[in-house]
Amino acid sequence: MTLFDAPAGGPARCRLVLAYDGTGFRGFAEQPHVRTVGGVLARALEKALRHPVELACAGRTDAGVHAWGQVVSFDADPGLDPWRLQQAVNGMLGPEVVVRSADLAPPGFDARRSARWRSYRYTVVNRPVPDPFLARYAWWVPRPLDLSSLRHAADPLLGEHDFAAFCRKGPEGSSTIRRVLDSRWVDLGDGVLRYEVRATAFCWQMVRSIVGTLVEAGLGRRRPADVVAVLRARDRGAAGQVAPPHGLCLWEVGY
Amino acid sequence: MTLFDAPAGGPARCRLVLAYDGTGFRGFAEQPHVRTVGGVLARALEKALRHPVELACAGRTDAGVHAWGQVVSFDADPGLDPWRLQQAVNGMLGPEVVVRSADLAPPGFDARRSARWRSYRYTVVNRPVPDPFLARYAWWVPRPLDLSSLRHAADPLLGEHDFAAFCRKGPEGSSTIRRVLDSRWVDLGDGVLRYEVRATAFCWQMVRSIVGTLVEAGLGRRRPADVVAVLRARDRGAAGQVAPPHGLCLWEVGY
Repeated sequence: MTLFDAPAGGPARCRLVLAYDGTGFRGFAEQPHVRTVGGVLARALEKALRHPVELACAGRTDAGVHAWGQVVSFDADPGLDPWRLQQAVNGMLGPEVVVRSADLAPPGFDARRSARWRSYRYTVVNRPVPDPFLARYAWWVPRPLDLSSLRHAADPLLGEHDFAAFCRKGPEGSSTIRRVLDSRWVDLGDGVLRYEVRATAFCWQMVRSIVGTLVEAGLGRRRPADVVAVLRARDRGAAGQVAPPHGLCLWEVGY
Repeated sequence: MTLFDAPAGGPARCRLVLAYDGTGFRGFAEQPHVRTVGGVLARALEKALRHPVELACAGRTDAGVHAWGQVVSFDADPGLDPWRLQQAVNGMLGPEVVVRSADLAPPGFDARRSARWRSYRYTVVNRPVPDPFLARYAWWVPRPLDLSSLRHAADPLLGEHDFAAFCRKGPEGSSTIRRVLDSRWVDLGDGVLRYEVRATAFCWQMVRSIVGTLVEAGLGRRRPADVVAVLRARDRGAAGQVAPPHGLCLWEVGY
């Protein structure tokens, strides 16, 4: 438990690190009439705290996407005990949604605006036969993938680029320029491959669109060097299919 | 694909290795009006083969118990193509139930009677906070377990003993003497502990009853040496609580 000296009488800014299985949710962002992670979390926090809660979150994951290190922040009445809040929320929502840690943050902290980078992991099972235990958390690709092609295709994404070709259109005029800090494939053995990507920020569906394109290179359906041409085209039609959501996990957020 | 020269006109004996997520099933054994692994498998095989199928299986797993290496055998019309059968069944039942391999076995092969040993794995997550991704496949034990006590308690189970204290009563007069070939705890790191046990055969609920007792030793609620007294008592009241089914997985069967 961390205690922060909040200004006398002001609200306490609370920070939670969350893990969740996204299978049963229509994503993080609260929406009327559908089950979202943000929706069930806000209701649970309001029940525990007995006052309305407005959440900021580091990464608005899409329907079916999981998280290990999602970060949210909100204001609570001063005198809040983060450890008791964590126990109360885990009792209501666990093990589907779990508060891994809860603490008090400086008043200016905002889970979204204060984040310096986000990292995601995308898991692929590359075996001729599916796996019942990885089916919820990994994309099953039965045809053999060439790891060296996957890696060659992933390299050119490093650095600052216009990722328009890999982004679903956001609000008019919004930038699609992002800085990618890590872009690598890890071989976990036994046909399990993981793409790890870290960036200052991501556009909508960017990771799944990148993975879909890299996997096409891994299957030999496009040359690894094509990724450079796709980036330059800035055209969504040039990229591959969007990979399914259940392989993706918001891994960590850096502040 | 293995082709076996069946006697002319006789049926082909087929052998499948199965993996399944047991969460949605009332166990393996076929029963009327409930969803069981054996039930859905037999229906899928009959659909693919167009004739009735009677299954023998190596380990009749209980409701909620998983398998990685369950083995079943049955008779099929000669001329069966095991590879096509595997594809057809996986198309109907995967990824919840998956045929990992299919081949033709010698006519006398019986998945249950021919088995020389079975191995099970029981996974425990020993962390203060639950894990959304292991929740379906591991028992969450929040209080700290002492690995050395777990190991000391597991050692005396090796060898031939009367396991009456760890068995739910079977048919009147049936023996509860079994030979345990392996009994060990593996530390997978990050709070994940796995009990691996191998025996010529197991009685009903034997592994879960053993794990429940060992975990009580790991929590300091009984001395590791107590396991010897429990064995000698041959009384179910002397053993610990039965561990929950979702941590258990039928791992492999030896022939």
